[in-house]
Amino acid sequence: MTEIQRIGVTRRWSDVVIHHGTAYFVEVADDPQQDATGQVAQVLAQIDARLALFGSDRTDLLQVLIYLADLSDGGELNELWDNWVPTGHAPSRACVQAALSPGYRVEMVITAAVRQSGQGTSVPPDIGQSDRQ
Amino acid sequence: MTEIQRIGVTRRWSDVVIHHGTAYFVEVADDPQQDATGQVAQVLAQIDARLALFGSDRTDLLQVLIYLADLSDGGELNELWDNWVPTGHAPSRACVQAALSPGYRVEMVITAAVRQSGQGTSVPPDIGQSDRQ
Amino acid sequence: MTEIQRIGVTRRWSDVVIHHGTAYFVEVADDPQQDATGQVAQVLAQIDARLALFGSDRTDLLQVLIYLADLSDGGELNELWDNWVPTGHAPSRACVQAALSPGYRVEMVITAAVRQSGQGTSVPPDIGQSDRQ
Repeated sequence: MTEIQRIGVTRRWSDVVIHHGTAYFVEVADDPQQDATGQVAQVLAQIDARLALFGSDRTDLLQVLIYLADLSDGGELNELWDNWVPTGHAPSRACVQAALSPGYRVEMVITAAVRQSGQGTSVPPDIGQSDRQ
Repeated sequence: MTEIQRIGVTRRWSDVVIHHGTAYFVEVADDPQQDATGQVAQVLAQIDARLALFGSDRTDLLQVLIYLADLSDGGELNELWDNWVPTGHAPSRACVQAALSPGYRVEMVITAAVRQSGQGTSVPPDIGQSDRQ
Repeated sequence: MTEIQRIGVTRRWSDVVIHHGTAYFVEVADDPQQDATGQVAQVLAQIDARLALFGSDRTDLLQVLIYLADLSDGGELNELWDNWVPTGHAPSRACVQAALSPGYRVEMVITAAVRQSGQGTSVPPDIGQSDRQ
């Protein structure tokens, strides 16, 4: 019996991987047709939805690494981000520029706490749907 | 007595660092003379070898952050990757473009589970040879 | 009662987040007016100070992801780095190039071990001052 829990497993990646009470996941906008603001808003909403899959929420974020295709989108990012992060519960955050797949403006790498230990959660390993291509 | 285990320690980095049942390591191709496909194949093989050092394998990958020197190598990456990842055990994965040291086409940052707790493994802290420059 | 400990919490990020005995933090130079060497020296000193906040030191580093605005600063980075890392305690390390906010030459993403478990430390969650903008 494994101590690793995977949610939304595809051939290429899992939407979430949980181990020892820590969750690892990566988000890009489901709809990359939108502009930077639209994509950041999507990614933040997707993080909420992902966290809910294993009983966590925004207050459980540990670290977020943000890759922007263009750092000049940082203003739009921060405006949405600052209103999204719960007061007193901000994660560690890095933000750098990196070229992303065509059309994508933002990619976030998230580490979050799972309230119950990874082995103790009741989330089955095959729930959740992958919505990245 | 430390709870941190380091494998392949050099002056600049350790090949693997294990703490609380989680292993952290970074791979670039041992031979950067090869093209992107050759370098990705090397890195994946190096990950296998590294995981074996502490009794884990590909099914224990938690998260992989992939830096490609050129995102247009993504097709070659994915073809090798998809055949390498064990069905049902895909890690969380991010892939962005970043300039790397001259000649290098890919760098991977790996987080993996250690089957026994970090403190409980029998791997001595000085095994393994560093093969990065 | 939460098992997550945050130090230097601002609206946008926390200076350090600790969970399950692992600390996550990100450093850029407090004074980005300095050149690459000056900024690397600052960041390394800031890491020392940050680690001390929760009773750890350089021997507790697990992984450091280094983003350089210009990889040609790698020589200066390595000279300072090699003298800073304690012999036998080098972390896992990645180093890639990424555009950073204007003026910044280096950004480091750090994962470190906390000597006592996150829940057992006596560090209050509100100590430490954020010194990033």
